Amino acid sequence: MASLFDSLLEKVHEIHDLSKAGALLSWDREVIMPRAAEEIRIRQMTTVQRFVHELFVSEEMGELIEGAAAELDGAGGDGFAPSLVRLLQYDYERARKLPPDYVRREAETSGRAHGIWRDARAADDFASFQPILEQIVALGQEKAELYGYEDEPYDALLEGYERATTTAEVRAVFDAVKAETLPLLQAIQERGREVDDSLLYQQYDVERQKEVARYLAAALGYDFERGYMGTAVHPFASSFSRNDARITGRWYPDFLSPAILGVMHESGHAIYEQGTHPDLQRTPLARGTSAGIHESQSRLFENVVGRSRGWWRAHFPKLQEAFPAQLGDYTAEDFYLAVNKVQPSLIRVEADELTYNLHIILRFELEQALINGEVAAADLPEAWNEKMQALLGITPPTNREGVLQDIHWTWPSFGYFPTYALGNLYAAQFYAAASEQEPQILEEKEAGKTDTLLAWLRENVHQHGRKFPPAELVQRATGRALSHEPFVAYVTKKFSDVYAL
Amino acid sequence: MASLFDSLLEKVHEIHDLSKAGALLSWDREVIMPRAAEEIRIRQMTTVQRFVHELFVSEEMGELIEGAAAELDGAGGDGFAPSLVRLLQYDYERARKLPPDYVRREAETSGRAHGIWRDARAADDFASFQPILEQIVALGQEKAELYGYEDEPYDALLEGYERATTTAEVRAVFDAVKAETLPLLQAIQERGREVDDSLLYQQYDVERQKEVARYLAAALGYDFERGYMGTAVHPFASSFSRNDARITGRWYPDFLSPAILGVMHESGHAIYEQGTHPDLQRTPLARGTSAGIHESQSRLFENVVGRSRGWWRAHFPKLQEAFPAQLGDYTAEDFYLAVNKVQPSLIRVEADELTYNLHIILRFELEQALINGEVAAADLPEAWNEKMQALLGITPPTNREGVLQDIHWTWPSFGYFPTYALGNLYAAQFYAAASEQEPQILEEKEAGKTDTLLAWLRENVHQHGRKFPPAELVQRATGRALSHEPFVAYVTKKFSDVYAL
Repeated sequence: MASLFDSLLEKVHEIHDLSKAGALLSWDREVIMPRAAEEIRIRQMTTVQRFVHELFVSEEMGELIEGAAAELDGAGGDGFAPSLVRLLQYDYERARKLPPDYVRREAETSGRAHGIWRDARAADDFASFQPILEQIVALGQEKAELYGYEDEPYDALLEGYERATTTAEVRAVFDAVKAETLPLLQAIQERGREVDDSLLYQQYDVERQKEVARYLAAALGYDFERGYMGTAVHPFASSFSRNDARITGRWYPDFLSPAILGVMHESGHAIYEQGTHPDLQRTPLARGTSAGIHESQSRLFENVVGRSRGWWRAHFPKLQEAFPAQLGDYTAEDFYLAVNKVQPSLIRVEADELTYNLHIILRFELEQALINGEVAAADLPEAWNEKMQALLGITPPTNREGVLQDIHWTWPSFGYFPTYALGNLYAAQFYAAASEQEPQILEEKEAGKTDTLLAWLRENVHQHGRKFPPAELVQRATGRALSHEPFVAYVTKKFSDVYAL
Repeated sequence: MASLFDSLLEKVHEIHDLSKAGALLSWDREVIMPRAAEEIRIRQMTTVQRFVHELFVSEEMGELIEGAAAELDGAGGDGFAPSLVRLLQYDYERARKLPPDYVRREAETSGRAHGIWRDARAADDFASFQPILEQIVALGQEKAELYGYEDEPYDALLEGYERATTTAEVRAVFDAVKAETLPLLQAIQERGREVDDSLLYQQYDVERQKEVARYLAAALGYDFERGYMGTAVHPFASSFSRNDARITGRWYPDFLSPAILGVMHESGHAIYEQGTHPDLQRTPLARGTSAGIHESQSRLFENVVGRSRGWWRAHFPKLQEAFPAQLGDYTAEDFYLAVNKVQPSLIRVEADELTYNLHIILRFELEQALINGEVAAADLPEAWNEKMQALLGITPPTNREGVLQDIHWTWPSFGYFPTYALGNLYAAQFYAAASEQEPQILEEKEAGKTDTLLAWLRENVHQHGRKFPPAELVQRATGRALSHEPFVAYVTKKFSDVYAL
């Protein structure tokens, strides 16, 4: 079975190397590059992306993939070769569905939309964003048709972020989450217990924040010998190989949460990338399998581990050591409560663990309505505000704090938002299965340790890279399909405790 | 004249973008990347380099270049289009002369040689390096034949670093430099004046060193808004566009020179790149024209400006402010003398401004002898030591401090060493011409300013990028061919002063 697969693999390696060069151009742009180089850097990134795309969608590549598939003679299983060929067949077919003309128009429109959105948000002027939003929605609709779908157009877009997961499946779990979250939120609000999080809002030396962030990331299991922590305005994680998976943080002189919870979040993403199996290197198998599963790892480390009582019992002393004046008079319990304060709020990225999903469900429902043509762009502010009132009990006083808050709709990224909430659900489900299979995970959690949890994730999630679509991975790892139940059980238990319900 | 040139330009932009992605992979490897990622990063770099090379040497590219040249109908002059097409013709012809088989063998041998050299140097064991050095020399000889030459094989190799400059020309100026330097060195040694440079060898806080380095780089004219200063074990400068030209420094806790002289050196390289004309962007015209001219800019800012009395009279107070305990009791004059101490020594990279060229002349002479077959690799240590004695009056006690000290002969880089000394000569010649044309440069120098000098360099050197080969650039800028005279006049004046001859 040598020849054709080997030729294919060589091409795949080359294309992957090139795509990682493009990823580095992008990482460097956010972390190191002087702003004056923006224009030419975008051209460099565009060129590299185009080479990657053109090399991949070439006729030659298609023939190699099919030749290698024939050579494997229908061999199934989850070995490297059949897994890679199956994934390439999938990626190739999907990549070929977007004609160059569409790709060009999408890039051009999105390029313009970014500046228009930024100005519209700053001026709280939805009307100036509306025309380009209409174009973005139209592109989304066109893209859905180009990709094709069985049941509803949104399926075709969701597929781009959560392979082989349907809108109906997501809707079912989100509806259940909504049905369980609203009464829990109401109970918390009726209980009226005040959680004090003012300790997070003090003056914190930025260099010390970085030291604390490094300490926490390492404690979670992030390997600094195979990574790097930089600074970025909008923190993110990015990897160029399993031995070079990087995180970024942002440091506010008067607010500690981004340095601790934000960095633990990005560490989760990077720990996933660090855990892909070495055999998958330099191929498209060598990364997280979907946006939702990736988010499950960041949420698991940020929330399930990083907002637990045991974690802070173990690690709060380190924070006190770094910030004696700010934290010397508080207890680990004070800190645990502060990072778990529930408070319906307007801005998604500032939302707590419980209400966050409601922000996502709102967007998920609106995106479907936009793509189905049930809501026009012009009517979006009103629809947004109504849903905010229904889900969170508050109405944004401005569109700046409402429909204009997210960057996501400056390109046809419909289908991406739901993966944030899926991440929360997957995280709870992985954790429940892991701690059932390996009960010492719970003991370690109380001691602020993650060794057994990390080993379980390496074995059941990380090492596989993109071998399995998310639903299959979840089924294999947890023995059941995606469900809202572990998440609901998790938040019910936690917030009953935090709010003494 | 539209069509063919425009098509060519589009291809050139793409190839250039890709080459800059490769340059970033390399920069990042030295400055940011975790060491664990070394192996895969080398593969990524190799892939990108191969794409760049293959795209450039393609038949299609050759036809486009010739088509564009025909379209320009023999238009000469130094406008953008004819300059670019001429340069592409030159680069294309040269790139096509190395067959893929040679390129592969060179990469493979050099890859092995690096580790062998590192171990041989550490163990002071020339015999273990000798066999691979023989292969490197043979590759150099083969490369010279592949490129072709008129007078002597070394010409073909020198051409790779100093376009259109012959070995005979370099030999003539180097012989003159040698003839003038040796008596000056002898006079200094006979004078017996002790210059105290112990102030450089104290404990210096590393973070403060970085602040001082930033201050000095900015004072020279390096634009931090279009650059970045990182840390590297072997400092270098690298650019990804004129708006993103970066420097690196190395910080020793007990030795100040690298942070000040080293950073001023790299700033000179980066100032050159920042000064290329915007019209040349995304083409091979958009960088320094040769290794020697590049080195002239680093040496000019490091030495002619940065080791001048006026510079330290103006800027030493800033150093005293940063390091009051270390420098409070010294004067600017003490500091000026310390950074100009002359002392024949074994290691090239630690050599002073006067004896540095002798280290280069030694290598230049030995490289020719190796390539011509007059000296065998086996006889190199002896030849090295004899020349050291003749030129510098000292004999290395070990090969580690002699023939094994440089990394350069781990690949067939014959022809590169002379550009270091050419840089010194060009620097002095540029400075002499600039200060003759704009006498206020001398006044500004006394006040530690570089405004008029920088403007002159921008106009006469930087903006042209690779439009003119070094000899032509020097002729245009200074009104005469390369000469040893300005350099000899400069060092004679400076060291007569420093050593009160």
